[in-house]
Amino acid sequence: MKYKAKPLPPVDLPELRQVGKPLRRVDALGKAVGATVYGADFSMPHMLHAKVFRSTEPSARIKRLDVSKARALPGVVCVLTSEDAPGAKLTTDMPGQTGRAARAGSDAPVLAGDVVRFVGEPIALVAAETLALAERALELIEIEYEPLPGVFDPIEALKPGAPVIFEPDNVVARWKIRKGNVEAGFAVADVIVENTYRMPFVEHVYLELESGVAWVDEQGVINIRAGTQVIEHFRNIARAVGVPQNKIRVRGTLVGGGFGGKEDITVEIFLALLAKNVHRPVKLVYTREESFIAQSKRHPFIITHRTGVKKNGRITAAEIEMIADSGAYPYLSPYVLLYATIMASGPYRIDNLHVDSVVAATNQPFTSAFRGFGGPQACIAYEQQMDEIAHALNMDPLDVRRVNYIKTGEQNGTGQVIKSATWLEESATRALEALGEKTPDTDTIKVGWGFASYFQSYGRITWFHDTSRAWVGVEMDGTVVIRCGAPDIGAGQINSLCQITAEILGVPLDDVTVYSTDSAVTPLAGTSTATRQLYMSGSATFQAASAVREVLLDRASKHFEEQPENLDLADSKVFVKSNPENSLPLKELVARCASEGLPLSNLALFTAPFTDGIDPETGQGDVFPDFTFGTQAVEVAVDTETGEVTLLKSVACHDIGRAINPAAVVGQIAGGSHQGLGYALTEDYVMEKGVTKTPSLAEYLVPTSLDFPTTQVIILESGSGVGPFGAKGIGEPALTPAAPAVANAVADAIGVRIHELPLTPKRVLAALERNRLESRD
Amino acid sequence: MKYKAKPLPPVDLPELRQVGKPLRRVDALGKAVGATVYGADFSMPHMLHAKVFRSTEPSARIKRLDVSKARALPGVVCVLTSEDAPGAKLTTDMPGQTGRAARAGSDAPVLAGDVVRFVGEPIALVAAETLALAERALELIEIEYEPLPGVFDPIEALKPGAPVIFEPDNVVARWKIRKGNVEAGFAVADVIVENTYRMPFVEHVYLELESGVAWVDEQGVINIRAGTQVIEHFRNIARAVGVPQNKIRVRGTLVGGGFGGKEDITVEIFLALLAKNVHRPVKLVYTREESFIAQSKRHPFIITHRTGVKKNGRITAAEIEMIADSGAYPYLSPYVLLYATIMASGPYRIDNLHVDSVVAATNQPFTSAFRGFGGPQACIAYEQQMDEIAHALNMDPLDVRRVNYIKTGEQNGTGQVIKSATWLEESATRALEALGEKTPDTDTIKVGWGFASYFQSYGRITWFHDTSRAWVGVEMDGTVVIRCGAPDIGAGQINSLCQITAEILGVPLDDVTVYSTDSAVTPLAGTSTATRQLYMSGSATFQAASAVREVLLDRASKHFEEQPENLDLADSKVFVKSNPENSLPLKELVARCASEGLPLSNLALFTAPFTDGIDPETGQGDVFPDFTFGTQAVEVAVDTETGEVTLLKSVACHDIGRAINPAAVVGQIAGGSHQGLGYALTEDYVMEKGVTKTPSLAEYLVPTSLDFPTTQVIILESGSGVGPFGAKGIGEPALTPAAPAVANAVADAIGVRIHELPLTPKRVLAALERNRLESRD
Repeated sequence: MKYKAKPLPPVDLPELRQVGKPLRRVDALGKAVGATVYGADFSMPHMLHAKVFRSTEPSARIKRLDVSKARALPGVVCVLTSEDAPGAKLTTDMPGQTGRAARAGSDAPVLAGDVVRFVGEPIALVAAETLALAERALELIEIEYEPLPGVFDPIEALKPGAPVIFEPDNVVARWKIRKGNVEAGFAVADVIVENTYRMPFVEHVYLELESGVAWVDEQGVINIRAGTQVIEHFRNIARAVGVPQNKIRVRGTLVGGGFGGKEDITVEIFLALLAKNVHRPVKLVYTREESFIAQSKRHPFIITHRTGVKKNGRITAAEIEMIADSGAYPYLSPYVLLYATIMASGPYRIDNLHVDSVVAATNQPFTSAFRGFGGPQACIAYEQQMDEIAHALNMDPLDVRRVNYIKTGEQNGTGQVIKSATWLEESATRALEALGEKTPDTDTIKVGWGFASYFQSYGRITWFHDTSRAWVGVEMDGTVVIRCGAPDIGAGQINSLCQITAEILGVPLDDVTVYSTDSAVTPLAGTSTATRQLYMSGSATFQAASAVREVLLDRASKHFEEQPENLDLADSKVFVKSNPENSLPLKELVARCASEGLPLSNLALFTAPFTDGIDPETGQGDVFPDFTFGTQAVEVAVDTETGEVTLLKSVACHDIGRAINPAAVVGQIAGGSHQGLGYALTEDYVMEKGVTKTPSLAEYLVPTSLDFPTTQVIILESGSGVGPFGAKGIGEPALTPAAPAVANAVADAIGVRIHELPLTPKRVLAALERNRLESRD
Repeated sequence: MKYKAKPLPPVDLPELRQVGKPLRRVDALGKAVGATVYGADFSMPHMLHAKVFRSTEPSARIKRLDVSKARALPGVVCVLTSEDAPGAKLTTDMPGQTGRAARAGSDAPVLAGDVVRFVGEPIALVAAETLALAERALELIEIEYEPLPGVFDPIEALKPGAPVIFEPDNVVARWKIRKGNVEAGFAVADVIVENTYRMPFVEHVYLELESGVAWVDEQGVINIRAGTQVIEHFRNIARAVGVPQNKIRVRGTLVGGGFGGKEDITVEIFLALLAKNVHRPVKLVYTREESFIAQSKRHPFIITHRTGVKKNGRITAAEIEMIADSGAYPYLSPYVLLYATIMASGPYRIDNLHVDSVVAATNQPFTSAFRGFGGPQACIAYEQQMDEIAHALNMDPLDVRRVNYIKTGEQNGTGQVIKSATWLEESATRALEALGEKTPDTDTIKVGWGFASYFQSYGRITWFHDTSRAWVGVEMDGTVVIRCGAPDIGAGQINSLCQITAEILGVPLDDVTVYSTDSAVTPLAGTSTATRQLYMSGSATFQAASAVREVLLDRASKHFEEQPENLDLADSKVFVKSNPENSLPLKELVARCASEGLPLSNLALFTAPFTDGIDPETGQGDVFPDFTFGTQAVEVAVDTETGEVTLLKSVACHDIGRAINPAAVVGQIAGGSHQGLGYALTEDYVMEKGVTKTPSLAEYLVPTSLDFPTTQVIILESGSGVGPFGAKGIGEPALTPAAPAVANAVADAIGVRIHELPLTPKRVLAALERNRLESRD
């Protein structure tokens, strides 16, 4: 065995009764039996069906738009164009840095007026008695375009004289890092390695398409029931629809996958506009094609690394340039670019660092949040670069990394001191050890190993003043209710809240019910994005449940004539720790508290740490509450005749601080890994002059569970996270290292690096051919 | 003019901007245009329709019950009997006095098993695809009864050997008051006056019949959407249905009238049982006949007063005996009797007092809460008795009362010291003055004046540990949301919360949205009963809004460089009081707070004062937070040939502390008065051997708006209440004095007292005849 697991530092993790156990998730049964009511499953009496009329041109002026025939069709109740929603903008207002805000926000028109900027851009809305009538109405809408010049590549978009999509120069955002003395660093380097890495658009491909139902209630409040990662969008919806914020109510659903694609508003404003106009319930469900061509994508990036290293592997300087494509509208691009910039140098101590990044507008589908939010793109570049450095120095890839891995107490690229455990070597040696023995090559099949270490933030940017609220209450029979606005996007967010509460209050998980995602009545808990919910809402729930526990134990203390710290709660009983037989049913304790008017509920507010932001000239400053660290290692087999890459083994080892539900953690990591493996190998979102050539699952190849072996998951628990019980976050990190691990394994197998993902057979064959030609020279 | 208004003591009530203004209620538009979705108006896809199979016997054993034919009817999905809900009880658990609880609680079976105890008692439930099928299924249910002896009068029920309906002796509850020395008091009396007064069953006759829809959601929670005064019944529903309390969610509606009749559970358990069994939405709407025969009624009372008085009118002693009829099951009878007992001696200082009260079970419809909760029955007796005392002493009825009216600082019958203003003479003189000149008699038409003063508690019994919670939050655009579980039963409960919040936060009423009555997610605010919501939830809202105001003014203080007390909020602006031009839009202030992470919402808990309860031997102790005082005066014309009583004038004058919305107060008082006038004159719920002879609005005469002149309302504002801004409560008090005022006026007109309500033409003619006979003697 080439690699041996490095011993873990000692940690003191108390044994818990429910936290840390792979209990059946509270949402499992509903999903298993089909009782879960997703966005599209909900219907109301007298409900209408809506459709969106969309642009077929990537860049054009609308010369004529005539919806009169559609409006005249019997059964069509409403057709809306930009004239009916004047000035309505789909805004994405994230708080900027105080006084020195990044250029952010996405003022995309809700319905295109004079011009269209990408294929799929919404132009008109139809609501009709049946879906078939709504579809027929779309065909009756008449439109004439005058084509305008377009730009379909961010590098082209940044050139002087390029068609301007985003005023004044297509630059949606720029960030930079200036740390140490890069010239001096390069001067002392023994070797300088420079490479450019490219990544494509990626599609989210959630199983549940964008969907929802809206209606106006008896108070005149527009209710929107839709799958979303952000119920707080009610504010932006209100602004777009032109009603006060207290007149929009977003009722989230359990979400059938989000991955960032439901972080932006999807169907909500359309539904609200229609419901407001027709005063009847309206349902809107996108088709898979609409989701493909018209909804957000992962940012394509072109990333160039120039790294100076000593012969022993130590990095002396790094210059990194990142160019990203925002598509036609900014959405969250400025922040995705910021994340990518901060993660650009990887989990390595680099004292002399320059990063320059830019995201440019093109006439392509807009790009926005996608699991990792720029972090995976950064990792794909920095981890391939680490292998290239190893190759240049003729070192083992692990040895190069060992020399540079960041340690607790050291600074990342923006100068933020890492306070939690950074178990990089620990995770890398474990992942590699678990690969076992290398599968032998054959004549035509070349086997390679590759791995990638990463760091990825969890929790939002610290100048966003992030907060989460949760309410926990004990019922008179000892059952428990949680109210917390946090959306569950399939990752088990609400289950975590239940398991934390069950632990603290000592009740079975089945005795906990959670009400979430109703913007009007559930305590607002922020977005289910940025790997923040376990940290934020988990902590709020922890606080609220702990406050109730304190009331219970204080009262029990009188009953038992024991100090509260000598008592505990478990199995719906309160008992004396030293003599568990001396107990009282929780129900009876609750009755005593209630008859004395003691409060058995608590609304807690959890506030993330706040910082002022980063210096715009140097990029220095604290940006995140903390980071997750880990490594993924894979073994691939490359068929040198067909170019096909087969994944043989995959092991992911992450320090998640503390596993609230290990089964859910395994699911998250296995799923995130699978998504990252598809990013590496099969998922190719092809654009030609602004037209999507892969608008369905027939062309765009999402790996099924049969395409790759399940990633073996190794959970490490340093207990050092800032989340409840020392937990870190794993939602996004789960994906981050998969793709670069594959890229490194393929390079290891075939002896040549392919600088662009995905590693399709065509690209593999081309690389092999190039290699043969180069070898011949 | 015989009576002149007594000058009011000086009070210092600050002028407010929105509180005290007759603004259009927030629920008005929905009701006016028909958008309000009451219990019966709500439908869901795939919904079933339910019906209840009821007893036709007042007292019988069920020999045979066969639902097989009903179950076999195509389209019938479910038929449930007591065998399907074994042991299910409809419990009413009100907290007893610590250690010496009144015998309370109402363990009525949800579905009758072996025996039935009143006509209309539920025996089986049916759910079918259509209402017609459900009705047809009822006809297919076969039942055989074996009649059992019954008892139909509480006096009979209390006799030894009476059939036992309530073990062991039909006594559902007894209360007593022993204060001072009654023998000594009678010994010094110049005159002793003794009379017995009788009052009938009364029907609530809310416009909205009992109705709702239930369904099981994806979490397995049984949701019940129904009109109710008490969403906290989810606990009792859970117990009856046999599920944990966190698996029942009651979503209240705006209620189309409650009056106490929706304080007990109506359709909720039936709906929950059916939904749990069929796993489809189920709707149940009672018919008017069901509501009449099978739902709760106001308690009939027989009240005997024996009063010792000096010649100057001063009461030296009083003995009061009260006998009430609980019908077949206790429900809230023990507490209604307690209220009646406490109010028995009226708003008079009586140092030597005995009260003995008892409520007995009979085979009649059960009686429970009804606006005033025993207080009106007490008042009907004590105010007629005051007129009888005046008659015996040949004094003016006002003069007798003047001598005895209780004053602030004096004790009521249970020894509770009255702390707020007791504007009894002030209200009486104003009401009488407003009657103007007396209409002259004719030969056959005799005109009489009568009035009644009263005191009535607001807020719940002080050993109930009553609490209310409310959450107030300001949105980013300066609009406001309230979350508060308080049911609005038509009286404007939610409007009051909005108006209080609008006042405190300085925003227009239209900018406030309120979410109420969802037991799972809105802060629990307690029952909309006992005239408690303005006091309790109004105070909780006041606290929550004030906390948000403090945050806003603190932040504004930095902006203006002024102390917070020099700033104010109005018209969605914050401004410097001394220079209102120096202002900032609320929206901008909110944005500043939000960007600094200041909390712009607050969840407040308001707790009523707590006392240990009353001494069961003496009835002495503090029972209520405070009392409302007032007087109603009427002029009637009695046609001595037909016995018909015509109401000519009605004036009600109440000190309500402070009017939050004067228009709503006028509506409450005018409506309550109308209900009380019907009680006096037309509403006669006739029972014969357990059978209701008046099961519809054709027989039971509810006065329409054309039958009586609208009561003129005189609002007094002492500012001395314990509610927000010094408010008292008016919900129940509005009704209390109307009926005795009429009874006194009729006695004044015809010179003879009729000791039993209602004063039907038949009774009036009989009294006139009796009078003629007696005069002849």
